[in-house]
Amino acid sequence: MTVHTTALADRACLIVHGPDQPGIVAAVTALITRNKANIVSLDQYSDDPEGGHFFQRLVFHRPELSAVMPDIEADLRTTLEPYGMTWQLTDQSIPKRMAILASTSDHCLLELLWRHRRGELNVTIPMVISNHTNVAEDVRSFGIPFFHVPSQGPDKSEAEAKILELLIGNTDFVVLARYMQIISEDFLDRVDVPVINIHHSFLPAFIGAAPYRKAKERGVKLIGATSHYVTKELDEGPIIEQDVARVNHTMTAADLQARGAYVERAVLSRAVQWHAEDRVIRHGNQTIVFTDRP
Amino acid sequence: MTVHTTALADRACLIVHGPDQPGIVAAVTALITRNKANIVSLDQYSDDPEGGHFFQRLVFHRPELSAVMPDIEADLRTTLEPYGMTWQLTDQSIPKRMAILASTSDHCLLELLWRHRRGELNVTIPMVISNHTNVAEDVRSFGIPFFHVPSQGPDKSEAEAKILELLIGNTDFVVLARYMQIISEDFLDRVDVPVINIHHSFLPAFIGAAPYRKAKERGVKLIGATSHYVTKELDEGPIIEQDVARVNHTMTAADLQARGAYVERAVLSRAVQWHAEDRVIRHGNQTIVFTDRP
Amino acid sequence: MTVHTTALADRACLIVHGPDQPGIVAAVTALITRNKANIVSLDQYSDDPEGGHFFQRLVFHRPELSAVMPDIEADLRTTLEPYGMTWQLTDQSIPKRMAILASTSDHCLLELLWRHRRGELNVTIPMVISNHTNVAEDVRSFGIPFFHVPSQGPDKSEAEAKILELLIGNTDFVVLARYMQIISEDFLDRVDVPVINIHHSFLPAFIGAAPYRKAKERGVKLIGATSHYVTKELDEGPIIEQDVARVNHTMTAADLQARGAYVERAVLSRAVQWHAEDRVIRHGNQTIVFTDRP
Amino acid sequence: MTVHTTALADRACLIVHGPDQPGIVAAVTALITRNKANIVSLDQYSDDPEGGHFFQRLVFHRPELSAVMPDIEADLRTTLEPYGMTWQLTDQSIPKRMAILASTSDHCLLELLWRHRRGELNVTIPMVISNHTNVAEDVRSFGIPFFHVPSQGPDKSEAEAKILELLIGNTDFVVLARYMQIISEDFLDRVDVPVINIHHSFLPAFIGAAPYRKAKERGVKLIGATSHYVTKELDEGPIIEQDVARVNHTMTAADLQARGAYVERAVLSRAVQWHAEDRVIRHGNQTIVFTDRP
Repeated sequence: MTVHTTALADRACLIVHGPDQPGIVAAVTALITRNKANIVSLDQYSDDPEGGHFFQRLVFHRPELSAVMPDIEADLRTTLEPYGMTWQLTDQSIPKRMAILASTSDHCLLELLWRHRRGELNVTIPMVISNHTNVAEDVRSFGIPFFHVPSQGPDKSEAEAKILELLIGNTDFVVLARYMQIISEDFLDRVDVPVINIHHSFLPAFIGAAPYRKAKERGVKLIGATSHYVTKELDEGPIIEQDVARVNHTMTAADLQARGAYVERAVLSRAVQWHAEDRVIRHGNQTIVFTDRP
Repeated sequence: MTVHTTALADRACLIVHGPDQPGIVAAVTALITRNKANIVSLDQYSDDPEGGHFFQRLVFHRPELSAVMPDIEADLRTTLEPYGMTWQLTDQSIPKRMAILASTSDHCLLELLWRHRRGELNVTIPMVISNHTNVAEDVRSFGIPFFHVPSQGPDKSEAEAKILELLIGNTDFVVLARYMQIISEDFLDRVDVPVINIHHSFLPAFIGAAPYRKAKERGVKLIGATSHYVTKELDEGPIIEQDVARVNHTMTAADLQARGAYVERAVLSRAVQWHAEDRVIRHGNQTIVFTDRP
Repeated sequence: MTVHTTALADRACLIVHGPDQPGIVAAVTALITRNKANIVSLDQYSDDPEGGHFFQRLVFHRPELSAVMPDIEADLRTTLEPYGMTWQLTDQSIPKRMAILASTSDHCLLELLWRHRRGELNVTIPMVISNHTNVAEDVRSFGIPFFHVPSQGPDKSEAEAKILELLIGNTDFVVLARYMQIISEDFLDRVDVPVINIHHSFLPAFIGAAPYRKAKERGVKLIGATSHYVTKELDEGPIIEQDVARVNHTMTAADLQARGAYVERAVLSRAVQWHAEDRVIRHGNQTIVFTDRP
Repeated sequence: MTVHTTALADRACLIVHGPDQPGIVAAVTALITRNKANIVSLDQYSDDPEGGHFFQRLVFHRPELSAVMPDIEADLRTTLEPYGMTWQLTDQSIPKRMAILASTSDHCLLELLWRHRRGELNVTIPMVISNHTNVAEDVRSFGIPFFHVPSQGPDKSEAEAKILELLIGNTDFVVLARYMQIISEDFLDRVDVPVINIHHSFLPAFIGAAPYRKAKERGVKLIGATSHYVTKELDEGPIIEQDVARVNHTMTAADLQARGAYVERAVLSRAVQWHAEDRVIRHGNQTIVFTDRP
């Protein structure tokens, strides 16, 4: 759970997925052996052993990893080509760069900054961008750069352009930590890295504005939060994590929202951690998540 | 939690609700005192102390209760009339009669029968009615009458008429324990007792047929169940209880359904228990539930 | 859940407990009515309606409360004396003063400071005292005074004396937020306000040093935390709140400890909130907690 | 989750564990490939990639499995000998035989019988043995043989001898489903199959008689249950699964026990299922559990 930087030295994470077929696991593990690496952990899943799709996450340790990464990559290309598999190899000692977009709410933002400082998120945080200024001081007290990009008026293109200017080249994924602006399709195309969002969710669903008020009116007994990758269908992207909290009739819509904040910060933190550790594989509108949850 | 029949002797449950106003609690508790009763438990809630709606559930013990019930009722009428309050007084030593409608699934049905036998539900079960026969033997092994009312063809009115014939006069509330037939508005009007239903529910909602398959396709991480009173808007009635279970990518739609069964039986059992103990007050499309949950 | 200061204006919390007897609820509620107050919430519990002990928490609203507090207190004295009841009346618009003692760990401390800033704890925080300095900057960034009282060597009496000098007269209760020093009986006597502690706890219990290592060796599947009032029996005082998190074989003792931190901060926060809102009544080595948990 | 018998045809589960070393995963997976089998699932864990202990559970599909089992076993012997690994190969289409010992409580017993009938436990149940007769009829209604072995007086050796006579040769593991007799060391030696027990557990622990009363006196807020393998140290054996339920001051010791029953039946059911599916590897006093929990 805690990220020990020294423990990540010379460690790589290999993601392999594609059409399931006999021999694929043997081929991958033989490759690891002949490259003098030791398997640290291995998770795999096949949605149908007969003709389904196969997913594998393998973490290995190889002394002097950075020197031999090109050799291992070449071996992977040769070995996996006949199987038609997609793969991705990541040096775990190089944390991903995570930019955060926020608005006025601090609960998700501060939880990420604090878990990062605590050494529980294997990321660097190059910047926090907000369309408001109230979180600036908190962000900077963690030693993280803060940029204010206001987004007034109906035309958001100017604000998005400024944000893109800050982000492009500087981030490996973007987290919307209760960022209350709609992201345009054009922005998604141009930022070209995964974008993770968090939003409230209910049983049953209350779509549109004022969901906590609607949930109150229907007398729901659970409120929840969902973290997902942002796609052009907005809040319909592949789900990474969800959770709920119990509520009752004594709680006002404001109380539901306050309690929901605790669910949101926990759900988003787990989603971010799993993404940072290459535990999430997107597959159509689903995710395969090799979680570290007991 | 366990219902001790002797413990319920000479106990009554008083529900009072109406416009909140100063003095109402004092008026009710003074009434209890002057009727020589002792308060066992008292729960109350006001949705707004200034001009809101007030709800109270009060359980009291009064030796020789059945002899003095008419006096207490007369006193309640006189006392509460000036306040414009609605009230209901129930002798807890007389269990409510609960008829169960089922189809082929046994998980909710058997859980209710078992909790009843265990002494955890303060009800009698006059009958189980099913449109199938597979649960007949199990039901009768609990000493409960079973009636088979098939419901073939598009016209359900004949089946509903037979069910009503069995129910009317013999039940205080009806539980749909995974009863897979749509209940007509006419049936609801004529049965004229509360009807409690259980159905699956998801974050976000998947409406219509095959919800588990749709949830699987979206890759949900939680599945849930909701128990509610049936109204003419079908699955839109006031919610009594909800809960969820965690699921993941390795589970098929059938696995989700199997796991959902455990949530359904727990949620329905709690909803039934709370209704049986007069813990649920309907208020518009909400419920005030004075649960016994810690 | 969220504390709206304006909502607490003219609100008082009345705690009454003592031998259960008929008429006590009527006597209290009549007193509220004749003092022109309106009941906002009422919780009560009797451990045995026949000859047991009775506990009540009643929140009421009375315009111009501060002017009439002495009158209400006089009325309470007169009214409750014949019943032999203990009572306590608190003006909710005056937050309790909560001093925090910490060591090097920041997880419980920062959670309390953040919830306080967020308006979710009805307290003021006059000071944080630590035997280390690493949390000083964080504490001061919340605008809270920080005092460093080192505690080296076997004799803690000097350090305790300094802490008492800071605390006495300035605090209504003390929270040990992972304060890793043993509190002497003398300290407890002299500080003379409730002291709340948080510690890890396991199923089954692992007593003494290195509990996470022992739990790991036994292969436990759950780790927990307990918050309680400190008594002279150290970790044996009355329990306010407990919770657990699931763990498994892949987690090291350090991982268990890291995960335990999340349980600890949640459990302590709830215990503190309930104490601050006068929801906890101590009774022998037990607590009656009228929680706001749904 | 649900056991589809056809799905288990030609499936085997291979457990391998021993000193961790490079190449072991490649060796095993190559063996699977050359034996024309297809990996269905693979879980592994190493308690230390440098010189630790390695554990693997691998499920594979091989057409005409029963014909080639001896060949695969011979290959495993040859392949794994140089690595010094312990292994075990199980044909999943042959369910384990599970004998159940019970006393008067039915909650754990009926849950197991019902989950078995529902097709969720991959076992056969050759018999239920009880030192009481009250559960006989229920057991037989599930079509399971019931044997009554009374255990009066201080000398249990005669009763144990009768039970052993019934068990030996007829069972692959034994479940103590709230069997309220102490098992002798001699019995354990002679029965010579794994024995799984369930017992209540608390935070903190309350040892000895009347644990629910003691927990009540201390005012605990959680009660729990632990399922473990029985060893000569009685309730100190390796833990398979644990869970808790929330309780509060309103609940009597009898209520705690009633609520505890729901935790017990769930925890024991999961432990039994995981054992039946060869998901639990014992390692000293710990267990490695490759659960199917999301």
